[in-house]
Amino acid sequence: MNTTEEIEDFILNGHLHYVPHVSIDCAIFGYHEQQLKLLLIKHKFINGFCLPGGYIKRTETLVQAANRIVEERTGISNLFLQQFKTFGDPNRAQINEFDEEKWFQATGVRITKDSWLIDQTISVGFYAITDFEKSIPSPNMMAENCAWFDIDSLPKLEFDHDEMVKDALHTLRVQLYHYPIGYNLLPEKFTLTEIHALYETLLGKKLDISNFPKKLIALGLLKKLDEKRSIGAHRSPHLYMFDKENYNKALHEGLVLS
Amino acid sequence: MNTTEEIEDFILNGHLHYVPHVSIDCAIFGYHEQQLKLLLIKHKFINGFCLPGGYIKRTETLVQAANRIVEERTGISNLFLQQFKTFGDPNRAQINEFDEEKWFQATGVRITKDSWLIDQTISVGFYAITDFEKSIPSPNMMAENCAWFDIDSLPKLEFDHDEMVKDALHTLRVQLYHYPIGYNLLPEKFTLTEIHALYETLLGKKLDISNFPKKLIALGLLKKLDEKRSIGAHRSPHLYMFDKENYNKALHEGLVLS
Repeated sequence: MNTTEEIEDFILNGHLHYVPHVSIDCAIFGYHEQQLKLLLIKHKFINGFCLPGGYIKRTETLVQAANRIVEERTGISNLFLQQFKTFGDPNRAQINEFDEEKWFQATGVRITKDSWLIDQTISVGFYAITDFEKSIPSPNMMAENCAWFDIDSLPKLEFDHDEMVKDALHTLRVQLYHYPIGYNLLPEKFTLTEIHALYETLLGKKLDISNFPKKLIALGLLKKLDEKRSIGAHRSPHLYMFDKENYNKALHEGLVLS
Repeated sequence: MNTTEEIEDFILNGHLHYVPHVSIDCAIFGYHEQQLKLLLIKHKFINGFCLPGGYIKRTETLVQAANRIVEERTGISNLFLQQFKTFGDPNRAQINEFDEEKWFQATGVRITKDSWLIDQTISVGFYAITDFEKSIPSPNMMAENCAWFDIDSLPKLEFDHDEMVKDALHTLRVQLYHYPIGYNLLPEKFTLTEIHALYETLLGKKLDISNFPKKLIALGLLKKLDEKRSIGAHRSPHLYMFDKENYNKALHEGLVLS
């Protein structure tokens, strides 16, 4: 949406093209060298920072909508977006966070309290994780700012997005051995130290490195190679890689552990 | 909803009291002595069987709505209902499954294709598991039948409810060691054989019994007691019980494994 006409049409007729009362919000985590960040947007017409979000077209699936919304809002694509929870508390998106004057200044279009956009909305939460060095935000004209924020120093978010982030991160951690992580965050062949550092950063706690790879190897996700990386005089750690077929299967289906 | 006036009001004005375009559907699993079943409803105005479902009041949270819907539709209460996935494919609830004549015969009220009830609806899926010997269905007047069906011989379901059941069962299995199961399905003190049989039934596969309890004990969910149950001349298996505090914590928060 880049013109006043498009915005006006969206406000007046959007309910014909989008499913009213439903939205999507995305918690996009970024990892690089033991740092964990979150992608946030500051819209021109909302006072604080939010997760990238938007509405679902009547002709698209939820995951198609999530991908389109992320690309339109942030410029970032090729994420593996997964649903984690739907949020529907009655007071989750209070009208007082929405600044009608700022919206008018940003868009040139008036929006009233009867608008389908303001009525009670549930939100389907998606999350993804990417390498923040490779995913550079390029937001659309509705945003004032779109950037990566360190997970331990996030600003207070609008609506119920603080709760969404907390739930998304918890889901990522609970599901860590069921929906594999790492394929787009590590080199094709990596050392045990590199994958261990990734998992420690994601879990937010220390992990015993000697035990660490056994579970991933037992699950068929990780293979130890005969190859080594030559780092220094007395250091040539073995390299590992993901078993791509098992990884993709687990990613789409989820692993059941017994 | 038990009278024609209530149904008429629901059709005409329901969008004021319920959130349009959103529904909830519940996959309620039943367990007893190594049998796994699913609770299904046959409405008077829909041709085939469905999961119990309904609409969300504007004043309730999603889980409050899920509990109310299950109680109204099936008469069953005190379930621990958990969200597992939201379904939003554009063609998920085709109008041809809805029989307008049968609806009129069942309710005495006409419904048109413009009705908020027929428009595109996404559905938030919840699941729960209970002891089917203790949870006896008692459906409301909109249903022709509400009963437990063996999980391996389910009738073909309406809408996308086959997909919902498959996803719900898969979620239950993936989450088995993160969100504990068993507290309402076993006696307060049970033998290893009893809990092992429960887990085998839920997972749908054989589990090595000698290894089985170690994970649950290591997670702090299960305690081996000094007590034994006297079964026969040479059989006095140890009894086990859940650690109630750890169990409840895991149930509400989910366990992160490292």
